[in-house]
Amino acid sequence: MWLPRRFKFCPGCGAEVRYQVPADDNRERAVCGSCAGIHYENPINVVGTLPVWEQDGAPQLLLCRRAIEPRHGLWTLPAGFLELGETTLQGALRETDEEAGAQIEIGPLYGLLNVVKAGQIHLFYRARLLSSVFNPGPETLEARLFAEHEVPWDEIAFQTVRITLRHFFADHHAGQGFPLHCSDVA
Amino acid sequence: MWLPRRFKFCPGCGAEVRYQVPADDNRERAVCGSCAGIHYENPINVVGTLPVWEQDGAPQLLLCRRAIEPRHGLWTLPAGFLELGETTLQGALRETDEEAGAQIEIGPLYGLLNVVKAGQIHLFYRARLLSSVFNPGPETLEARLFAEHEVPWDEIAFQTVRITLRHFFADHHAGQGFPLHCSDVA
Repeated sequence: MWLPRRFKFCPGCGAEVRYQVPADDNRERAVCGSCAGIHYENPINVVGTLPVWEQDGAPQLLLCRRAIEPRHGLWTLPAGFLELGETTLQGALRETDEEAGAQIEIGPLYGLLNVVKAGQIHLFYRARLLSSVFNPGPETLEARLFAEHEVPWDEIAFQTVRITLRHFFADHHAGQGFPLHCSDVA
Repeated sequence: MWLPRRFKFCPGCGAEVRYQVPADDNRERAVCGSCAGIHYENPINVVGTLPVWEQDGAPQLLLCRRAIEPRHGLWTLPAGFLELGETTLQGALRETDEEAGAQIEIGPLYGLLNVVKAGQIHLFYRARLLSSVFNPGPETLEARLFAEHEVPWDEIAFQTVRITLRHFFADHHAGQGFPLHCSDVA
């Protein structure tokens, strides 16, 4: 299993840590040999939106081409790490502004995807685009709309984005609404 | 804002860190003065279940009385921190087993609650109890079923649990199903 942050030293006192199972626990944690502090590592959250532009009944989706690693040059939905001090919805709004400069009305939660190997949960909210003019930030090379037949399926940056796009078009064609989709990514 | 883990020393090399805004960032992070490592702090997830025992049409809910701090002696739904290596659903199942020893069939996601002050997201899945016999673990003093009129509203450990219980009984009486509820806790 991939661990996003392995401690070598105690962030509280700077002494070396050892991975061991603390009393009253059942997993290895980073335990400080000096101050006995225990340092936990847990999955973190990526939050974003699925911005939809509706015209003549055929929806178009906003994708951003990444100007940063990982997956430089590939296309993604606007999304990024949830920060302390904000709700998941506020984080999704912030990322949509930072990465795409898109004006949206945010809607309900649409995707919750566990990416266990990366220690991440990805949350996507549906959003209605209020304008088709974008103002991408420095993390984005280009932001543009894609109709279903235009989506660059082989150049999508992340599997969670690909799954969420597929759910959207399937739900659109089914015409029964847009329920929350929970998925696990291998 | 309450920060769950403030770094004083670099977990990578043990040197002192300083909080400063790195290049290409817009927030203060713990930056190591020696190896230049940047150490991020992000909200983490609490996962659990809302276990329901149905008999004669009047649902009863499983609550656990906490044997640990915080909120020792108060009642909660079975829940705990999501661990690396598991999905949110697997974590909710694990906590339900560890804290209550309850046999359940897990259902859809029912509550997503942002607890910004604590840097936490709480996720509760609906669950159907397959037995009314429980086997609580060391973190639980007592696990038992409560009908609506029996719920100890003044002795509920966490606001997210209180909100989720209220949603459940409201949805039960409305008779229109159990949609996902997204809430923010002050």
